[in-house]
Parts: sequence; structure tokens; C-alpha cells
Amino acid sequence: MSEDIRDGEIATTLPEAFDAGIYFIGRIRTPWKTRSECPRNARGSDAVCTIELDPRYAAALDGVATCTHLVVLYFMHEARRDLVVQVSRHSGRRGTFALRSPVRPNPIALSVVRLVGIEGTTLSVVGLDCLDGTPLLDIKPYFASVDAVPEAVVGWSKNRED
Amino acid sequence: MSEDIRDGEIATTLPEAFDAGIYFIGRIRTPWKTRSECPRNARGSDAVCTIELDPRYAAALDGVATCTHLVVLYFMHEARRDLVVQVSRHSGRRGTFALRSPVRPNPIALSVVRLVGIEGTTLSVVGLDCLDGTPLLDIKPYFASVDAVPEAVVGWSKNRED
Repeated sequence: MSEDIRDGEIATTLPEAFDAGIYFIGRIRTPWKTRSECPRNARGSDAVCTIELDPRYAAALDGVATCTHLVVLYFMHEARRDLVVQVSRHSGRRGTFALRSPVRPNPIALSVVRLVGIEGTTLSVVGLDCLDGTPLLDIKPYFASVDAVPEAVVGWSKNRED
Repeated sequence: MSEDIRDGEIATTLPEAFDAGIYFIGRIRTPWKTRSECPRNARGSDAVCTIELDPRYAAALDGVATCTHLVVLYFMHEARRDLVVQVSRHSGRRGTFALRSPVRPNPIALSVVRLVGIEGTTLSVVGLDCLDGTPLLDIKPYFASVDAVPEAVVGWSKNRED
């Protein structure tokens, strides 16, 4: 994939083998079929998206309906994983760990979503910005006491999300 | 491991194979060598912990020092993965996705940490509660604009973290 690298970007050599395995526990359904259609970030759309959980995990939803907000982890399975420095129009030239880009050694994305409703193993949520069909990895309750830091600053970004 | 199951807990049958692989990109160093030593949650300790990043990803830290807070993803590699309903003294009987327990199909944990400093590929942070030696999966900038939801409620918990 090295032909896709932009001026100023740096690729690293990834390890030869994975260290652990993950399960896709469901799929995320969104209105966006291509990367260019996706909103710039999770606050960029009020679209209600759905999370279709594999029924084998149905009982694990017990209590989730009491949460106003959830953390959703999903796998950006189409992203390359070897770039350590990336260049974009929005963010300039940055290290991968200073970005929320899907391109990273483990392309695990995180979105904080508002829970709209649950029907069976389908959750309706607001706050996702990923491609339709994205594999789901995890759902967690969002605890304001530990997860909300309104005063946090990303110095390079002027509060854009990148 | 079924002998370890508690009254009221439910195990599911996990898929026969993993769907994707992940890399351990570093290790987290904390003062806690056993599970019982770990603080109850990430606000339970002001200990400065260190994140030792694999040097192959050093360039990916460019820009991270401008962040006051980071999202750290790590792998709870000692946790069983098949419980969909769990019972604990603190949380009662809950579905796995209503809990922050390490026991989940993909034992990927998330902590929001305050960045204290970076020296080479070692980050000093406050806000971790995991075992010493825990494998690191990812570091992300924390964007208050999308990640901070101070009004979020977990109805079953009375704002404890579980």
C-alpha cells in the first residue's frame, strides 16, 4: 500500500504476528456507504443509526436501557495500520496518536452515543459517523464521573475533531 | 472455566474463530500487581502510571504533548470473555454491556487519563486503574467537544463506576 502514502507521512514496520484476537459482535448500520459521505465527526450528524448485536449476546443488554449515553467501540476494518505520521487538510501533519483517524496500529474507533431506544438486539443511537456495515466490538455504559472531562484541550486542534 | 461462574451469571457460546487481530503496542506500568490491589475505578487513585510505547511507534506521538487528556485503550488479557450476565457485590446482577467489567467478549478497556508528561516513548499519566503489565492497544486525543457528556446518567448505578 506504500504507493498511497502522502508527502510527509511515515509508515512503520508492523509486528509479524498479531498478539490477540477479537470478535465482531455485531454490525453498525448507518446512512453512509462511502468514506466521503461520512460526517466529519460524531457531532456532525443527528442521524439515528442502529447497532445490530449478534443475538448470542442478547442477555448482555440487561440494564443498558437505563443508560442515557454509551461508549461504542468498533473496528475500522478497511483502514491501513502502518502509518505513524499522517497528513490531512484538516489536521496538518500529526502523529497517529494525536489523531482520531481510523488509520492506526489497532483501528479501534470509539464514539460516545446517545441511546434512543432498544428493541430486541437492535439499539438506536445518535452520534456515530462510521460506514454502514462497520463491525461492532463493544458497548459500554458512559459514566460521566470518569469519562466526562469538559475542560480537556487538544492544543494543536482548536477543538476540531480529527 | 464454568466452575467459576456465580449464581445468576450466564455464559454464552463464543464464536469458533476470531474475526480480526490486534497488536500489543506497549505496556502499562502501574503500582498494582494483583486484581485486589487495583483501585475500584479510575478516579480511585492519583497515582502517576506510565505507558511504555513500543519504540517502532515513536513518531506517532508527534502532537500528543499538546493534549491535556487522552483516551487509552488496553487489553484485559486475563479476563474470561464468555459471560453475558455478571453478578457482583457492587453492581448486582447486570448485563455485560451495562458494566465496565473486564469480562466481556472483547476485553478492551478504556480510560480517560490526564497527561502529565512524555519522555521519549514513555508517557506519564493519571487515571489508570489496571494491573501492572497490561498490554496497550491505542492512545487517542480526548476531544471534549465529542467525548465529554457531563449530563450522562447510568440509571442503575447511582453514578458509581462498575
